[in-house]
Amino acid sequence: MNVASSVTAATEPVAPKGVVAASVYADGRRVANIPIEEASNWRTKPGHVVWIGLLEPGMELLTKVQQQFNLHDLAIEDANHAHQRPKIEQYGDALFIVARTAQLVDGNIAFGETHIFVGDGYIVTVRHGASTSYAAVREHCESCPRALSRGEDYILYAILDFIVDNYSPVIETIQQEVETMEELLLETAISRTQIQRLYQLRRDLLRLRNAIGPLVEVCRRLERDDLTMVRTALQPLFRDVTDHVGTVQEQIDSLREVLAFAFEASLLVGQAQETAVSKKLASWLAIIAVPTAFAGIYGMNFEHMPELKWKYGYYVALGAIAAVCLSLFYRFRRAGWL
Amino acid sequence: MNVASSVTAATEPVAPKGVVAASVYADGRRVANIPIEEASNWRTKPGHVVWIGLLEPGMELLTKVQQQFNLHDLAIEDANHAHQRPKIEQYGDALFIVARTAQLVDGNIAFGETHIFVGDGYIVTVRHGASTSYAAVREHCESCPRALSRGEDYILYAILDFIVDNYSPVIETIQQEVETMEELLLETAISRTQIQRLYQLRRDLLRLRNAIGPLVEVCRRLERDDLTMVRTALQPLFRDVTDHVGTVQEQIDSLREVLAFAFEASLLVGQAQETAVSKKLASWLAIIAVPTAFAGIYGMNFEHMPELKWKYGYYVALGAIAAVCLSLFYRFRRAGWL
Amino acid sequence: MNVASSVTAATEPVAPKGVVAASVYADGRRVANIPIEEASNWRTKPGHVVWIGLLEPGMELLTKVQQQFNLHDLAIEDANHAHQRPKIEQYGDALFIVARTAQLVDGNIAFGETHIFVGDGYIVTVRHGASTSYAAVREHCESCPRALSRGEDYILYAILDFIVDNYSPVIETIQQEVETMEELLLETAISRTQIQRLYQLRRDLLRLRNAIGPLVEVCRRLERDDLTMVRTALQPLFRDVTDHVGTVQEQIDSLREVLAFAFEASLLVGQAQETAVSKKLASWLAIIAVPTAFAGIYGMNFEHMPELKWKYGYYVALGAIAAVCLSLFYRFRRAGWL
Amino acid sequence: MNVASSVTAATEPVAPKGVVAASVYADGRRVANIPIEEASNWRTKPGHVVWIGLLEPGMELLTKVQQQFNLHDLAIEDANHAHQRPKIEQYGDALFIVARTAQLVDGNIAFGETHIFVGDGYIVTVRHGASTSYAAVREHCESCPRALSRGEDYILYAILDFIVDNYSPVIETIQQEVETMEELLLETAISRTQIQRLYQLRRDLLRLRNAIGPLVEVCRRLERDDLTMVRTALQPLFRDVTDHVGTVQEQIDSLREVLAFAFEASLLVGQAQETAVSKKLASWLAIIAVPTAFAGIYGMNFEHMPELKWKYGYYVALGAIAAVCLSLFYRFRRAGWL
Amino acid sequence: MNVASSVTAATEPVAPKGVVAASVYADGRRVANIPIEEASNWRTKPGHVVWIGLLEPGMELLTKVQQQFNLHDLAIEDANHAHQRPKIEQYGDALFIVARTAQLVDGNIAFGETHIFVGDGYIVTVRHGASTSYAAVREHCESCPRALSRGEDYILYAILDFIVDNYSPVIETIQQEVETMEELLLETAISRTQIQRLYQLRRDLLRLRNAIGPLVEVCRRLERDDLTMVRTALQPLFRDVTDHVGTVQEQIDSLREVLAFAFEASLLVGQAQETAVSKKLASWLAIIAVPTAFAGIYGMNFEHMPELKWKYGYYVALGAIAAVCLSLFYRFRRAGWL
Repeated sequence: MNVASSVTAATEPVAPKGVVAASVYADGRRVANIPIEEASNWRTKPGHVVWIGLLEPGMELLTKVQQQFNLHDLAIEDANHAHQRPKIEQYGDALFIVARTAQLVDGNIAFGETHIFVGDGYIVTVRHGASTSYAAVREHCESCPRALSRGEDYILYAILDFIVDNYSPVIETIQQEVETMEELLLETAISRTQIQRLYQLRRDLLRLRNAIGPLVEVCRRLERDDLTMVRTALQPLFRDVTDHVGTVQEQIDSLREVLAFAFEASLLVGQAQETAVSKKLASWLAIIAVPTAFAGIYGMNFEHMPELKWKYGYYVALGAIAAVCLSLFYRFRRAGWL
Repeated sequence: MNVASSVTAATEPVAPKGVVAASVYADGRRVANIPIEEASNWRTKPGHVVWIGLLEPGMELLTKVQQQFNLHDLAIEDANHAHQRPKIEQYGDALFIVARTAQLVDGNIAFGETHIFVGDGYIVTVRHGASTSYAAVREHCESCPRALSRGEDYILYAILDFIVDNYSPVIETIQQEVETMEELLLETAISRTQIQRLYQLRRDLLRLRNAIGPLVEVCRRLERDDLTMVRTALQPLFRDVTDHVGTVQEQIDSLREVLAFAFEASLLVGQAQETAVSKKLASWLAIIAVPTAFAGIYGMNFEHMPELKWKYGYYVALGAIAAVCLSLFYRFRRAGWL
Repeated sequence: MNVASSVTAATEPVAPKGVVAASVYADGRRVANIPIEEASNWRTKPGHVVWIGLLEPGMELLTKVQQQFNLHDLAIEDANHAHQRPKIEQYGDALFIVARTAQLVDGNIAFGETHIFVGDGYIVTVRHGASTSYAAVREHCESCPRALSRGEDYILYAILDFIVDNYSPVIETIQQEVETMEELLLETAISRTQIQRLYQLRRDLLRLRNAIGPLVEVCRRLERDDLTMVRTALQPLFRDVTDHVGTVQEQIDSLREVLAFAFEASLLVGQAQETAVSKKLASWLAIIAVPTAFAGIYGMNFEHMPELKWKYGYYVALGAIAAVCLSLFYRFRRAGWL
Repeated sequence: MNVASSVTAATEPVAPKGVVAASVYADGRRVANIPIEEASNWRTKPGHVVWIGLLEPGMELLTKVQQQFNLHDLAIEDANHAHQRPKIEQYGDALFIVARTAQLVDGNIAFGETHIFVGDGYIVTVRHGASTSYAAVREHCESCPRALSRGEDYILYAILDFIVDNYSPVIETIQQEVETMEELLLETAISRTQIQRLYQLRRDLLRLRNAIGPLVEVCRRLERDDLTMVRTALQPLFRDVTDHVGTVQEQIDSLREVLAFAFEASLLVGQAQETAVSKKLASWLAIIAVPTAFAGIYGMNFEHMPELKWKYGYYVALGAIAAVCLSLFYRFRRAGWL
Repeated sequence: MNVASSVTAATEPVAPKGVVAASVYADGRRVANIPIEEASNWRTKPGHVVWIGLLEPGMELLTKVQQQFNLHDLAIEDANHAHQRPKIEQYGDALFIVARTAQLVDGNIAFGETHIFVGDGYIVTVRHGASTSYAAVREHCESCPRALSRGEDYILYAILDFIVDNYSPVIETIQQEVETMEELLLETAISRTQIQRLYQLRRDLLRLRNAIGPLVEVCRRLERDDLTMVRTALQPLFRDVTDHVGTVQEQIDSLREVLAFAFEASLLVGQAQETAVSKKLASWLAIIAVPTAFAGIYGMNFEHMPELKWKYGYYVALGAIAAVCLSLFYRFRRAGWL
């Protein structure tokens, strides 16, 4: 087998557009980069796994891959159109898995999809939209040969683990923003920009939940069911991914609930502020109304108004106005209205 | 069989009112358009499928169809009255399926119902209310003969797929409107017209959810159960429809939740605006109260008011008023009240 | 059997208080009106069904009926006290069913209860509170003799169907009122009377849901379980009732949700109106404050106020006041505050 | 057996503190009041049931009882500490049941707990906190000898039935208060006292739901499971209790929902009232602003103001003021602002 | 065995950093403190249990422990990283349990995690973050030798019971704060500080629920499943813990709901206060507007204003002003506006 491997390695092809990588692994080492057309030959060699990575492939390329591994029409059609919900399906002896990926691009969440075909001796990954390259997974697998030799189910685990891991930075960023926001919210009344941000965070979290929610079910089936693809020895690994997904989901749900609390707290803060403004308005109106009313009375043109003749009448009036105003001011202040 | 087919094709009848189409398919080709009365003869010929399409038929017509295929009384009664919930029922060896259809008519959602009877060698579709003609499905089936030859269960799949597909433009339109609205909502306080539109969108989404929700269960039964109608080889097709319905449902639920967020954000925006108006009101009242109070004081008729005798008293008073007003103005502006 | 029937018909008794009807049916015809005491003899005759209809019977009458059909103590106790939740219970070979009925009495919903005992050869209905007489059911059964001959399970179906049918006018009335209300709500701010009506509608719908919710379970058990009472051939009929109940329930839930939307929309409309009032208030205060401030200034008594000496000073002042007021008016109008 | 009974009755003991009653029943009659220490002897006599009633017993007393009936350590520990959730547990051949009781004490709801041990030939009830004495149950059991002879499972039923019955007056009282409140709420804006009451009612209903919710599960297990304690013939009795608990729970849930509606209606009423106040405020301000502005203008000190010289100028001015004020007044009234 | 025990006890090692305790128990007594390296020898001796307590151990230490008991890689990896959700997993014949702990640190809730490995003859506890030392559990176990002799499953029970017990003071503290707050809330309008506290309480309760929620499932599995670790005789103990967790969870849920009620009540109280402020504002404005308008009229400069000439005109005017003001004041007071 070594001979065959080295020979093919010599004829290493240039990957066509849409193909990120197409390699054969055996005994934990990459033994060859191959053209798609040779995949079906390699996958049947005992102990060999073909791993093909595609990035937004055209229908033509997908059809070529389909022929190599005898994939189901419906799965190929799904892989061609993005916008699938996370799911797992068994077509004959092959599994078809859809997962949504999330990434931070310029501070916003960008979503992508990864479609995975796994069968005896092969794994095909199809990436759509925003998603990190699986080169890291590839390197990780190559760096622990014992692991890779375990076959296509281990690679499947490594990819799912990688996808779920990549949710964490997204959620942590949101978490930080939520924490910054909740401090602001409780200190001052909410501004329009903050309402906008609050709204966007809720939408983003909704999208994240939609992306990751059904993935729990996918992982659970991989962990529990007697899927022919997954060896029993690997089931704890998938259980670990399920746990991880569950933790991420709990974080999302907590953040969603926290934002709902924040909304309600904002409403109360806003209401309290409105009342505070009304109280201030009322207080100042009352204070300013006093000199106006007073002055109005002494501005009347009656002929007989003895106070007007008093020598210090004006000063008494000014003093009375000041006294009433000040007394009102202190009363309002004491009552917490000012 | 060819002979028989051509013969009948020669005697092609004129379809009575309520009958959209009544044809026989064999080996993936339409072999004859038939009168209803001959349906029971054709359906028993091996490899032949009778497809009858009705549009808001009268009871008389329904009874004629019932006699041909020996349909259950209750199903016929249901088909006669619209306003059924989506459901699937097995009467003897026949299936009765109800699905709700949705369409955009002049920018509003119009709902319709399709009732489907499927049995050995026949399929009857009954359309009520707003729904697209199944001519497109018919053409699609005729254009891939291999498919049509697969029989009545494939036609059933094609119709359900078509119904679910037709939900997408409706939801996309709503989605666009929601997106336009959420931009507006977060920029300015909500207007009465927008509240009205928000309300209508929520009602429409509620109706859509009611229309499509029970359809999930229908598709799931077709995909999973051992219904005598559906061959195992076709189950992945129905699973595909289930997936599609699930995606549509998730979109509806997301939109519903987004509109709930929009409501809450509107409440906050409205509250913030109310407070802003109150602050502006309070600020201007304070500013305008100053000259009034000032002038009131110097409008008093006391005999001894030395300032009134000052040569520049008037200008000093004007200056003082202006100074206080401006100082208030800048204070309010700095505090964000103006 | 004919002889026996005619003989008994001759000795037709006068029904005591609480007994609406007590008849024997055979071969689809009413063969006799009987006194309660003879019921147990008639029910054992093959092909005969005794149907006794009671209206708020006393304990004495119930005991008499109990003895005839050997009914369970607990069921009789339940039938004596109203205020049961809809349920189905099997006591030995007899079924005990409780259903709630709803009717419009003077525009308000009145609730009643019907308790049904069904066993081999007999059916006893006990009505409490507001409920339509089952005379219509009786007539319907008598008018299709083939049906009646099918026995006590068919009568049970006919009664349940009748009860569920009677929910429809109630719900339609509410639906119309909701539609009238939602138009009003979105046009003007909600009035106290409307809030009151909104509240009552929600209460009524809650009661309706409580009344009809558990009935789904009752119908489902009749449709599915191997209850000894119900022949397999009749199960589609009960499935039909289940469907009907389901549709009614969906209508109720939709109306409940719509009223919740209406509440939220009202809150927004109310908030918008409050803001509109504040804006109007602020605008007019600003406009009216101008002449007051102006006039105040020229009402000051300073000796040296050159403008006061101007020949056209007064007209200039009036003009200035008018100019500022008009300019403010148009600005506010442009800003949508007026 | 009669001899033994009469003998023991002669040696009737004085019950120690914490023991409400300790009696032996046989053939439906109380045959003896016994000291705790003799309980284990009596319970093994065929047809005899020992019923011990304890009220907040100390650990010493509980241990004595435990020894007589060989009760499980954990159950005894639970019975010693109150604050358990309603539950049912089987320890060996004995059942341990916890139920919460509710009572009206001075118009407030007081909660208590009853712990019940049931085993072959004995029943022990332990009461904590507010709860009615089971003397009434005891009397009821003694008054229908046939019933009591049915053994410890019947007594268990009688106690549970009594507990559930005692919820009804509590709920009826709340229901009346809710009904009184909803009338008030919809007539005038809610007062602080009413908000307080509304809040307390919601808390009380929450507590009631917590108390009674898990009891459904307890009753259901008694009704359905093959618990060795309960004879099949008694299962309908327990089913009856389950029904009763279900009805109580439905009432609680309805009241909870009604109070939620009341909250929302109050919010709308409050908002409407706030707007009404704003409108009134705005109207009166406008009306009062007119004479002020008018008078201000004719209070200016311009030398050339021809109107001031007119003979009837003053009356014209007063008339104009009155005219404008009245016209405003009627306009506001027509618009519903006043 | 005694010999061996005393020998080892003589060579008692100094525990390395991260090791809180490492002891062997037999027959209910601590027979030796051992170095980690000897653990695997001791655990295989019949009747001996090794209990190792670690506090935030490094990977090196964990690896050492792993080797002794042959623990699964994934479980060790989990134990190394905190932030796991409560869970229970079986790896081969060993159980891995994660529980979250809660403690009050300076009045705030601090969360920690405890990871437990249990296998035949050993138990390893790993503490992360805030958590009480298990010294108390250790002492409790040592003080009832009979219990400890029951083995590692009893220790597991004791630890879980201890963890759940430690939730109670946390919840009681929150409960007291909630009760204090609800009194305040219903008396005066909510202040910003109170809103902040309300928000924090809701967040804390959310965290508590997240911490304790999944623990119910863990306990239930220990109580029910045929886990090889737990002897049947101990299952009632674990059922007791489940009950306890359930009670704690109910308390948390009740508090959460009560805080939601408090939010709604606050909203109503705030709204009522806002309206009260508006009413006061309106009342005072009306009262103060009267002298202003009056005085304005008699401040006009018409030449012919007979009242101005009256001798007591001024006093009549003052009296009229006072009369109207007082009458307004009493009217507003009667209407509850002042």
